[in-house]
Amino acid sequence: MTISPTSVTPHFREDLAALKQELAHEGEVVAARLSSAIKGLIDHDLDRLDEVAIGDADVNAMQMAIDDRAFKLLALHQPVAIDLRMIVAAIKINGDLERIGDLAVNIAEAARRYFSAGAVTEQQLLPRMSEIAEAMLADALKAFITNNLGTAQAVLERDDALDSLRDQVNRRLVDLMRHTPDALSSALELMLIGRHLERTGDHATNIAEDVFFVVAGEDIRHQVLGG
Amino acid sequence: MTISPTSVTPHFREDLAALKQELAHEGEVVAARLSSAIKGLIDHDLDRLDEVAIGDADVNAMQMAIDDRAFKLLALHQPVAIDLRMIVAAIKINGDLERIGDLAVNIAEAARRYFSAGAVTEQQLLPRMSEIAEAMLADALKAFITNNLGTAQAVLERDDALDSLRDQVNRRLVDLMRHTPDALSSALELMLIGRHLERTGDHATNIAEDVFFVVAGEDIRHQVLGG
Repeated sequence: MTISPTSVTPHFREDLAALKQELAHEGEVVAARLSSAIKGLIDHDLDRLDEVAIGDADVNAMQMAIDDRAFKLLALHQPVAIDLRMIVAAIKINGDLERIGDLAVNIAEAARRYFSAGAVTEQQLLPRMSEIAEAMLADALKAFITNNLGTAQAVLERDDALDSLRDQVNRRLVDLMRHTPDALSSALELMLIGRHLERTGDHATNIAEDVFFVVAGEDIRHQVLGG
Repeated sequence: MTISPTSVTPHFREDLAALKQELAHEGEVVAARLSSAIKGLIDHDLDRLDEVAIGDADVNAMQMAIDDRAFKLLALHQPVAIDLRMIVAAIKINGDLERIGDLAVNIAEAARRYFSAGAVTEQQLLPRMSEIAEAMLADALKAFITNNLGTAQAVLERDDALDSLRDQVNRRLVDLMRHTPDALSSALELMLIGRHLERTGDHATNIAEDVFFVVAGEDIRHQVLGG
């Protein structure tokens, strides 16, 4: 495919770079909110949890600004090939990041209910899941910013590790429910938080798949990948 | 904004219409799979559940064909204004539909585990949730096909009803866990299925929000809507 003259103006390149930077920034903000929600859980810090639960407006404003920039780039510069794929991927990634922001809110709300039900030692199982999910998100965005397929591939592989950790955590929580019926509600909220972290990993996986689409120009979402 | 000459050729209009029709068809297929998963649950029909669990390849193929068509439309016709918004919305909706297909698989797998754990009468709580989620999906797609904001608005309102029904279902299942510890695993799988149905409703809501963006050209995702 040929690149149309309008799409290689310096202004276009600057706007593309700015779009990537804005997404990277949005990613940092949602990762920090996720991390803060889990810290609030572990430290029993209700003020911190409330802060996460009410502070979603910034992310929403960022999301709308990024969508707006991406649409203007599409409409004004009519990009093709890798530039077109990158901008459409940015719109999709923007949606994934906004949902991760929502999941941080959900985690903070579940942690609030968890403390009302009563804390249990099994809460210590969750930070490890959160670390993996946050690292997946950071790497998926790094892969997008740098068009690095190796980094994207590593994110896809780590999603299996996260799912298997989630299974272990769930088994421990089911054991708790069986042997300590009074801890039922607490265990259910921890299970829900684990599921939110798993979904965070799924969104990071979506982002990594988009990187393959942008760089390779092919859709690997439903293909089996080599190791 | 002006419409560029290339974007109003008959071929372009035909391709846009075909894109909408393909999305509508994909929507019908995933709705049927969702419905089949719930029917398999209620009828204790393990063959049907297996069919849903293994039959996702069609939806994945449809999804890739639709993405491909949408990208070709963007690259070859360089649309602007409502046409551009429609095509980008189609790419996002395509992602939502594919995820609903995944949720049908998840439901079928959870139903399989549920029958291994032992059936309980509370399974009767789920078809109502499923009906609401399927109706939301059908209406969201209808709103997209016909650019109907009233229909889209009705979808957004029904999501609250679905969430509140999910809360009722969860309360019943927690009661079951408390009073019948042997039913713990069964109740957990039903709770998980309820959560998958709730997420189906969330995807339908995403689609309805995209309709507002396409038609009104504005982002209502984070605004409070009038009745």
